[in-house]
Amino acid sequence: MPTFSLNARTADARLFAKDHPLTLARGGSLDRVDVRYETYGKLNASRTNAIFVCHALTGDAHAAGFKPGEPKPGWWDSMIGPGKPVDTDRFFVICPNLLGGCQGTTGPASVDPATRTSYGLSFPILDMSDFVAVHRALLAHLGIATLLAAIGGSLGGMQVLQWALTFPQELGAAVIIAASSRLTTQNIAFSAVGREAIMRDKNFERGHYREKDTSPDTGLSVARMMAHITYMSESALGEKFGREHQHDDQAPGFGVDFAVESYLNHQAEVFLDRFDALSYLYLTRVMDYFDPFAQPDACALIESHPLPCLVCSFASDWRFSPEHSKRIVARLASAAVPVTYREISPGVGHDSFLLPIPDYQDVVRAFLSRVAARVRS
Amino acid sequence: MPTFSLNARTADARLFAKDHPLTLARGGSLDRVDVRYETYGKLNASRTNAIFVCHALTGDAHAAGFKPGEPKPGWWDSMIGPGKPVDTDRFFVICPNLLGGCQGTTGPASVDPATRTSYGLSFPILDMSDFVAVHRALLAHLGIATLLAAIGGSLGGMQVLQWALTFPQELGAAVIIAASSRLTTQNIAFSAVGREAIMRDKNFERGHYREKDTSPDTGLSVARMMAHITYMSESALGEKFGREHQHDDQAPGFGVDFAVESYLNHQAEVFLDRFDALSYLYLTRVMDYFDPFAQPDACALIESHPLPCLVCSFASDWRFSPEHSKRIVARLASAAVPVTYREISPGVGHDSFLLPIPDYQDVVRAFLSRVAARVRS
Repeated sequence: MPTFSLNARTADARLFAKDHPLTLARGGSLDRVDVRYETYGKLNASRTNAIFVCHALTGDAHAAGFKPGEPKPGWWDSMIGPGKPVDTDRFFVICPNLLGGCQGTTGPASVDPATRTSYGLSFPILDMSDFVAVHRALLAHLGIATLLAAIGGSLGGMQVLQWALTFPQELGAAVIIAASSRLTTQNIAFSAVGREAIMRDKNFERGHYREKDTSPDTGLSVARMMAHITYMSESALGEKFGREHQHDDQAPGFGVDFAVESYLNHQAEVFLDRFDALSYLYLTRVMDYFDPFAQPDACALIESHPLPCLVCSFASDWRFSPEHSKRIVARLASAAVPVTYREISPGVGHDSFLLPIPDYQDVVRAFLSRVAARVRS
Repeated sequence: MPTFSLNARTADARLFAKDHPLTLARGGSLDRVDVRYETYGKLNASRTNAIFVCHALTGDAHAAGFKPGEPKPGWWDSMIGPGKPVDTDRFFVICPNLLGGCQGTTGPASVDPATRTSYGLSFPILDMSDFVAVHRALLAHLGIATLLAAIGGSLGGMQVLQWALTFPQELGAAVIIAASSRLTTQNIAFSAVGREAIMRDKNFERGHYREKDTSPDTGLSVARMMAHITYMSESALGEKFGREHQHDDQAPGFGVDFAVESYLNHQAEVFLDRFDALSYLYLTRVMDYFDPFAQPDACALIESHPLPCLVCSFASDWRFSPEHSKRIVARLASAAVPVTYREISPGVGHDSFLLPIPDYQDVVRAFLSRVAARVRS
């Protein structure tokens, strides 16, 4: 097999417009939906080798490879690329920025064509199924009828679950990593406090901060720092930073003294450069309300089209602990879906899904290879 | 034995003044230190029945009984009172508000006699040993040479540990509940984010918010809400609130919708009425820096005066997990201190130490009775 390398491409598509608006699951509609997406690898002639990557809360379309001038590759470069588990020598990989996001896809910071100002809080409340609707439109735009697989971690995994439950006939397989079918009270609580920090920020301006040429940086920073603590296990934070001080000679005080304080401040700073506060509100709220198995007959469709599912969790993840994944596995298994479950032991907490952990990569690689072999055979 | 009932009394004392200032462990001094404290029960003729209660981060001197017009009793009313584990029919109980606090004891919001404005961030950085210094001065003021016991939970327990390590000859016993001898990286991280929320609040005014007739309410609210999540176990939060909604008919959005959101908002609101943002900074920072066993010969004094210690933890506590308590136990035991350790199983997380959990109350009651019996015999 020849090596195509990453073959990365970035593109934009207008998927919904005034004459064919996007009707949203929780009410309202959008007269214009643009989606930015990246692709890697090459679509084969039979159009059967496409893998769809769903990003997490603060991810974006840039999943793999280096953009010119950027020192770091895309957020899942360890997973996607030539010879990697999502092998771009074999698969055509699509990763779009989410509806409601802020990296080229229509979101609350976009201009509402009706008012010519940014939507702000008049942007409709989103539902996980809206993400799927937009991504199915993207597939239609690309001329792809069925996916070899959809794969995602955290919020991305939740979207894959939604897709698998509602349009199983369009997926050859589903890979659901470090995800949840229903947030716990604690999960909701952390998200709620992050949103409060943003919405109570003086510069939030009821969501119209852009028009006022400001932004709720304090709120978004605090939300990010707090969330970041929940993305790492207590032991991983301890091993990485311990109680080390930034500078040996610093007098005790309220400045940045412990190394972990410096780290969190840095995380907040780089986050401000790439993320929008309104997107943070909208996307976290989608997760809060997500509870697909509460729907009557939630598994009726997937029971008729029982696609192979891989569910992965990390023992060190306390944000979406393995219990979340086991609930998904139990529900899928009870619908006779062929579901493989793997709990990965080493790891750093929730963010493990972003890391090149050998066991984890092997599991994903083997699963996708089996799925691909089945299509060929 | 006659019943004296609670016999509550509130008082203020000027413990340090210009001619005998308080010199602080980390540098600086205070020319005036006033302390508000409450007492319950009666001091016996031999002055040997005093129990000192050290409050936690957001506690105060009002530990037990009802103040006129208040619907709720003091924060440890389940533990302190006639016939309760800290039995005011037998013991004379003293509970002061902490140095650095905001409930009548000198703190950063107090007026600096030198400048006649509030200290703000010019208040000196505090150390756990400063709390002990002030409380020893309070005992001298009260004419009490030795305590039957000192008892405290969380930060209060940390202070008891400090006291036991540095002045063991003055304590008949020490009760250290849900405490830590050294915060983890995660503990520090949560505190740091809370402080960032306060200090980045536009109304913080570099600590001089009182002079500007404002206060960093957003920051303090966010800090409190976030901290509150860490005070409860995930399962306790889940059992208490689940995914219940406040109102059945509310449309999804960013307002308070889930019951847990309403609860956290309420917690923040009542906290603003009773707590000061600068005190929050100062007291949390004392905890961050606390690490008494890192001192050379940390156990030398207690080894010479091995007072009985009771260390209690709660299995459900993930803020200061039982591992924190076990470390304290191991260090004390290695110094041949007679230490009793109990891990209490039921509970709601860190805040369990405030609740009337039968096993917990029985352990404290039995320990204090043994200690009291030893004094009498």
